[in-house]
Amino acid sequence: MLRNITNVRGIKCWGAHTGVKSMRRDLAIIYSEVPAAAAATFTQNKVQAEPIKISQKHLKDNKAQVIVCNAGNANACTGEQGRQGAEAMANVVAEMLKITPEDVIVASTGLIGEKFPTEDVVEGIRINIPKLSNNTKAGSFVANAILTTDTFAKEGFVDFVADGETVNLGGVAKGSGMIHPNMATMLAFVVTDFAIDENLLQETLKYCVDRSFNMITVDGDTSTNDMVAVMANGLAGNKKVMSKDDPGYGLFKDKLLELLIHLAKLIVSDGEGASKFIEYRVTKARSEKIARKLIRSISSSSLVKTAMFGRDPNWGRIISACGNAGIPFSYKKANLYIGDNENLVLVLKKGAPTDFDKNYIKKLLRESNIRVLLELNTGKEEGTGWGSDLTTDYVLFNSVYTT
Amino acid sequence: MLRNITNVRGIKCWGAHTGVKSMRRDLAIIYSEVPAAAAATFTQNKVQAEPIKISQKHLKDNKAQVIVCNAGNANACTGEQGRQGAEAMANVVAEMLKITPEDVIVASTGLIGEKFPTEDVVEGIRINIPKLSNNTKAGSFVANAILTTDTFAKEGFVDFVADGETVNLGGVAKGSGMIHPNMATMLAFVVTDFAIDENLLQETLKYCVDRSFNMITVDGDTSTNDMVAVMANGLAGNKKVMSKDDPGYGLFKDKLLELLIHLAKLIVSDGEGASKFIEYRVTKARSEKIARKLIRSISSSSLVKTAMFGRDPNWGRIISACGNAGIPFSYKKANLYIGDNENLVLVLKKGAPTDFDKNYIKKLLRESNIRVLLELNTGKEEGTGWGSDLTTDYVLFNSVYTT
Repeated sequence: MLRNITNVRGIKCWGAHTGVKSMRRDLAIIYSEVPAAAAATFTQNKVQAEPIKISQKHLKDNKAQVIVCNAGNANACTGEQGRQGAEAMANVVAEMLKITPEDVIVASTGLIGEKFPTEDVVEGIRINIPKLSNNTKAGSFVANAILTTDTFAKEGFVDFVADGETVNLGGVAKGSGMIHPNMATMLAFVVTDFAIDENLLQETLKYCVDRSFNMITVDGDTSTNDMVAVMANGLAGNKKVMSKDDPGYGLFKDKLLELLIHLAKLIVSDGEGASKFIEYRVTKARSEKIARKLIRSISSSSLVKTAMFGRDPNWGRIISACGNAGIPFSYKKANLYIGDNENLVLVLKKGAPTDFDKNYIKKLLRESNIRVLLELNTGKEEGTGWGSDLTTDYVLFNSVYTT
Repeated sequence: MLRNITNVRGIKCWGAHTGVKSMRRDLAIIYSEVPAAAAATFTQNKVQAEPIKISQKHLKDNKAQVIVCNAGNANACTGEQGRQGAEAMANVVAEMLKITPEDVIVASTGLIGEKFPTEDVVEGIRINIPKLSNNTKAGSFVANAILTTDTFAKEGFVDFVADGETVNLGGVAKGSGMIHPNMATMLAFVVTDFAIDENLLQETLKYCVDRSFNMITVDGDTSTNDMVAVMANGLAGNKKVMSKDDPGYGLFKDKLLELLIHLAKLIVSDGEGASKFIEYRVTKARSEKIARKLIRSISSSSLVKTAMFGRDPNWGRIISACGNAGIPFSYKKANLYIGDNENLVLVLKKGAPTDFDKNYIKKLLRESNIRVLLELNTGKEEGTGWGSDLTTDYVLFNSVYTT
């Protein structure tokens, strides 16, 4: 049986159609019956949508009780009219649920620079708050209501035991379908009944986002609306975790990371026009930071991505992309492997090309799941990332007239 | 009548076929009859080809007399064997021309990670040094001999008067044809008979490269072999320029920049799979550096480039790319214009979209020359850059099996 955000204690939610997007659900509300510790990471783009600014303000105390998100209009580059719209969303939610607007996290995704349809969204919230429910179906409605051009809804759920109590974590995400809207927005909302200090939750979320959503790349652009938010309402009943040394913290961090990686990989799988899912690992590095930087440089290189589309074990492009990572890099001791889920072929040994069988690798690269492993042999740290290839379909999708 | 590097006093050159590349010229030698001030800028990629390392060493004194370049093999990721090959190129040139190897600049372009064909290249140098000539044809041979998959040879020439003497500047370049080789190499070689201090020449070259080659983007990847080198042999007879305040310096800087921009734009025009040439200008900025950073971020955004291919006046993608430039950015006061060579249409006025005619702009964007102008209205500085669109052809070319 499917478990989702509705299996987290005290969580009620709903996903509805307000009419901003024709024919599809376009409004999601996630509500915790009790106030929750809350944390979020936001887009690094200097152009920030109005809901991003409001949510940053509301999360200064790292507490929240509701996440409300509309799809179809990004409320970005909308100025004063948009700011008022985002505030109206928080206000009507707060009024109806008898909480303070500062405890509402607001998110939007959709077209940029279009007048924000405040009336429709506010009216939608009014109509749908009474429908908040912990039925599994409601969780799936939420997962669908935050989509724009994604081709499937993205949900995840994990649990573990702390202090003899089952702790639940559920999440939904949307990714980078850029066929119709002006830009990709990456959104993820996670709820858990774990009891944890709100500042530690913020630190933990950043740690996990750096190793999940920040390690995926579809096309290298960062949207004005990106947000990952988590609410932890403590209803599991574990002794509230106040520091990293407290029992249960390590397991919580691992499970949160597992959930975020699951959602991040789903986003890559739905990258528009992508034909392959590629896992990049850099191992035996001097630091995890170095490993992660190299992965991001490789996985976002247009030349590497077109080579993957073309089933070309082009180690020169991979090594050159490492050289462009903005950090010291030597491939002299490096081993590089390329392959599919089952087979990895050594193509570079201690910096020198091996006598690999090109046709065999080309055959492996026909698979839709590809692996690239770079052993630096300079240390003990490692990192993992995920990306897609660059295809003719990507270009076609994104060149369609959309403004 | 065509004027090229052979119209610079004291310059002799030759471009020949040695057999490393079948059917095409693949060896270029440019020789100054007298020792010259010399300067170069090199790839920022941490993985550097062997000739890059040798040339950096040889240019420590900012003096040189010969540029020798082979095409077909990049001599990158070739280790000790490659290092010896690059040294052998300098040594045989020096021996035959009775100069020191330290006065030879070595460059290579072509496939990465293949054993360097030292014997063929050295033998080619031996055979062709006696053919060095100041015939115009020899200059064109050089322009052709440095190409890999470029579809046309790139030459330029400018002159001006200093101290009553005509000063000549000639240059050749190759760009980023990535259809066959593993990566694009950007090479440019410039010679002039201007008399200038070697350290001032280095500073001037960096200034001009920052505003020409560093302002073009085809696919955002930097190769292991990129190099821009200039030799100034002083045979024009002007009083040697020692400082920026000396008469003639300003004009020399302008003319060198003009020549490098000409060559840089030719490279963009030959970008593989590109269907459009786009000029980006950012004006009324607080600093030139800000203007240049914004241009680089816009012109390298996959979303902007696909929009250009799709003739989509997608101002949201342009503004979002500015937000990703890694510097503070606000579009609140900005005006944005999009158009062709003759017409520019205001699509964003003080940060708000205008009621522009989408179909009219779409028609303008059918042209192969497109302009994007962003007025920030926050200062008086500006910058210009050039780029191409991202096309389905680019992906096809670069996904062809090449390793």
